[in-house]
Amino acid sequence: MGVQATQIFAPATSLAVPAGLPVDSLPHPAADQIELAAVLHALSDPMRLQIVVGLAAGDQRPCGSFDLPVTKSTCTHHFKVLREAGVIRQRLEGTTRLNSLRRDDLEQRFPGLLDSVLRAAAA
Amino acid sequence: MGVQATQIFAPATSLAVPAGLPVDSLPHPAADQIELAAVLHALSDPMRLQIVVGLAAGDQRPCGSFDLPVTKSTCTHHFKVLREAGVIRQRLEGTTRLNSLRRDDLEQRFPGLLDSVLRAAAA
Repeated sequence: MGVQATQIFAPATSLAVPAGLPVDSLPHPAADQIELAAVLHALSDPMRLQIVVGLAAGDQRPCGSFDLPVTKSTCTHHFKVLREAGVIRQRLEGTTRLNSLRRDDLEQRFPGLLDSVLRAAAA
Repeated sequence: MGVQATQIFAPATSLAVPAGLPVDSLPHPAADQIELAAVLHALSDPMRLQIVVGLAAGDQRPCGSFDLPVTKSTCTHHFKVLREAGVIRQRLEGTTRLNSLRRDDLEQRFPGLLDSVLRAAAA
């Protein structure tokens, strides 16, 4: 049930990015490979919950737009955990990672779960 | 938001237990002290999810009644994580710990959350 076993690597695309950087190759699980334990683990950290709440408004946001009281590398780690669990999608635009919530995928896989977590986080 | 800060220690009762053992003094958070991140963390392990699904039928069950492929000490650890997060209640009966799901407390604190997790676990 680990995240490792369920990661699906998205095929590289022709996005123009600076030489030496990976070409939009951030790993995301496919919707039907998203695992409950991994999602709950991803949501079980207060910082990551805050990120998810921030993305729930619907916009794509760069990592730096979240005012979190942690170092940049810790912040990057939190986004990676969320992405690998299937909670968020990260899209490279140049050297920026744009983040969005995989609301539809999560709702399809685990109906009602994300909404109940968002309600609980707002309570 | 840690579990440590939110634990409320239940007052000792007059339960008759062998000398030298704690008298029904297992720590449980009060219902209004249950933290979302701690609950999600407690539910983010496949073994603990299995325990919660098993308790959802409604009966009080001793730890040993769960056929989990882990050592006894690991099993004890999983029940402790669930108890300290406020997901289950553990009651001492002699030297046996009887476990029950804190369904009402969780529903009051985070409406719909437990049910959506149970549905997801069954999917």
